[in-house]
Amino acid sequence: LKNYALGIDIGGTSIKGAVFSIDGRVAFLTAMPTEAEKGGKKVLDNVLFLIRALIDKHGTTKNVVGIGIGTPGSVNEKGIIIGGAQNLPGWEGTEIVKPIRKKSGLPVVVTNDALAMTLAEWRFGAGKGLDNIVCLVLGTGFGGGIVANGRMYKGAHGLAGELGHVSVDYNGYPCACGQKGCVECYASATGIVRMAIQVSAGLARNRRTAFSKLVAAKPRDLTSKTVYDYVKLRDAAALKINEMVCEKLARVVGIVINAFAPDRIILGGGVMNAGTAIIDMTWKYVTRYSLPGSRDHCKLVRARCGQNAGVIGAAQLVFEGPIGNKNV
Amino acid sequence: LKNYALGIDIGGTSIKGAVFSIDGRVAFLTAMPTEAEKGGKKVLDNVLFLIRALIDKHGTTKNVVGIGIGTPGSVNEKGIIIGGAQNLPGWEGTEIVKPIRKKSGLPVVVTNDALAMTLAEWRFGAGKGLDNIVCLVLGTGFGGGIVANGRMYKGAHGLAGELGHVSVDYNGYPCACGQKGCVECYASATGIVRMAIQVSAGLARNRRTAFSKLVAAKPRDLTSKTVYDYVKLRDAAALKINEMVCEKLARVVGIVINAFAPDRIILGGGVMNAGTAIIDMTWKYVTRYSLPGSRDHCKLVRARCGQNAGVIGAAQLVFEGPIGNKNV
Repeated sequence: LKNYALGIDIGGTSIKGAVFSIDGRVAFLTAMPTEAEKGGKKVLDNVLFLIRALIDKHGTTKNVVGIGIGTPGSVNEKGIIIGGAQNLPGWEGTEIVKPIRKKSGLPVVVTNDALAMTLAEWRFGAGKGLDNIVCLVLGTGFGGGIVANGRMYKGAHGLAGELGHVSVDYNGYPCACGQKGCVECYASATGIVRMAIQVSAGLARNRRTAFSKLVAAKPRDLTSKTVYDYVKLRDAAALKINEMVCEKLARVVGIVINAFAPDRIILGGGVMNAGTAIIDMTWKYVTRYSLPGSRDHCKLVRARCGQNAGVIGAAQLVFEGPIGNKNV
Repeated sequence: LKNYALGIDIGGTSIKGAVFSIDGRVAFLTAMPTEAEKGGKKVLDNVLFLIRALIDKHGTTKNVVGIGIGTPGSVNEKGIIIGGAQNLPGWEGTEIVKPIRKKSGLPVVVTNDALAMTLAEWRFGAGKGLDNIVCLVLGTGFGGGIVANGRMYKGAHGLAGELGHVSVDYNGYPCACGQKGCVECYASATGIVRMAIQVSAGLARNRRTAFSKLVAAKPRDLTSKTVYDYVKLRDAAALKINEMVCEKLARVVGIVINAFAPDRIILGGGVMNAGTAIIDMTWKYVTRYSLPGSRDHCKLVRARCGQNAGVIGAAQLVFEGPIGNKNV
């Protein structure tokens, strides 16, 4: 009986891998650095190494249905990485399906990392049982995934849901994608850190706070987690930055409400460890950026599957996707 | 054999009605003024009158499956109009399903007018055979409809696809919906006329054109059709207005590409009689506002079902929707 799947989640910083059972249990979980700066070939080598380690640990491939992979961007019909992989230089254009299939002897299915997380939240998390949900993933970058009419919505080449590249300010910050003012430039870990440094530097002497002094002293050590540690302490500068982040995030949430009228919008990714500080402030602005009919029906909630949502969703895709027997 | 349906398309200016056969033929088509300014009850009376006229003309209800109605906004589970009906004052809150069912003795299904048009284009027009399309309807207002994974996407209460209320300028023109800079304020007949008057009034004496002089002389007679008559004549002021319209429209088209990665985006509605003048200029700007991976896959085309798309789609919904046997 084939009742296991391997899940791989390729992130900007680390690659996670898991052996996942068909009853929704993670049997084994591990991770290693992505080493994105060493280029696409090295990333692929690391993925292959991690898969080898998972198979060794599991002991056999006989009861494994296949390998599910979540990646920034997506793959085309030739199994080559396309689109949206700006956080992994050299990753676009890498052929990944064939080498992984060859080395592992297992079927391989690839999807966008945010879409994998969406699948996890839909089956096991904050979107369980709902037919229309949109997940926004606030990590190093900003991803999105859509469930429409009770099915994953992939669009052309699986590239749908790139909601991080919706512009929220057409005269705004130049995004790596070539557009201006993409929400990824504001409501992602990278964007939050950038804005925090900018805001702290711009504060008049008498408005400086414990947080802004810390940022000025060690700007390179700043993470979005630190920003939200100080939001918890009600530091005025940190609170201002959170409001800036949430106001921009609310613009995209508003567009999502008007365009999709979903049952629920789920916010996930590392940044969302901040929890209600983001949810509540964002919702305050959403009322300004959406139509009441759809908004009243929709809830904005935090993801529930935690930091392993991506790897769980990637593995779950094996049971449900092109390899499996459900038509997600 | 029940092989006919009635279609009703409720617009800001006129109500259209048609008897439509299951083989895709319009047997009889008629229209009357909406008289929106007289309030919701009068609009409903006019709809009932038109249905009566269609049934009289058709001669029987024995071979009629039901009545499909396209309306601004949508209906809730009680058959009451909700949301997005700003062009029909007093229409929101009107109970329409029960009185129509009672007077006609036929099953009634209601959908958003842009969604009805989308269904027509999907079955008979520019989206035929495709699984993922988005229609944008540039009429008095600006509507939208989505087909996702080979099914109509309705979202909560059928309110999905309100792409006219995506903001393209957060400091822009105040929209009737309460938001600022909605694309409806620019790329709709109403928005085009408003911008044309504004631009014409602001031209320096030595930049005035035949078009701007006409507008200055008779601003109240101006329609979007006149604007595009002068675009055809290469009038500089009219060309400038078209570029402003298309630049704003391109922002929403870009968001649609990034979010949905559809196979095709279809532009319909009365404004699109302008054809390639809008398609070509909009696409020029779309490259600035979208990710290449999804954009390269997507085509921007003009609707094909013409001015009766709404009424055809409303009738077709009867064969396919909750009354019919296909799960759209």
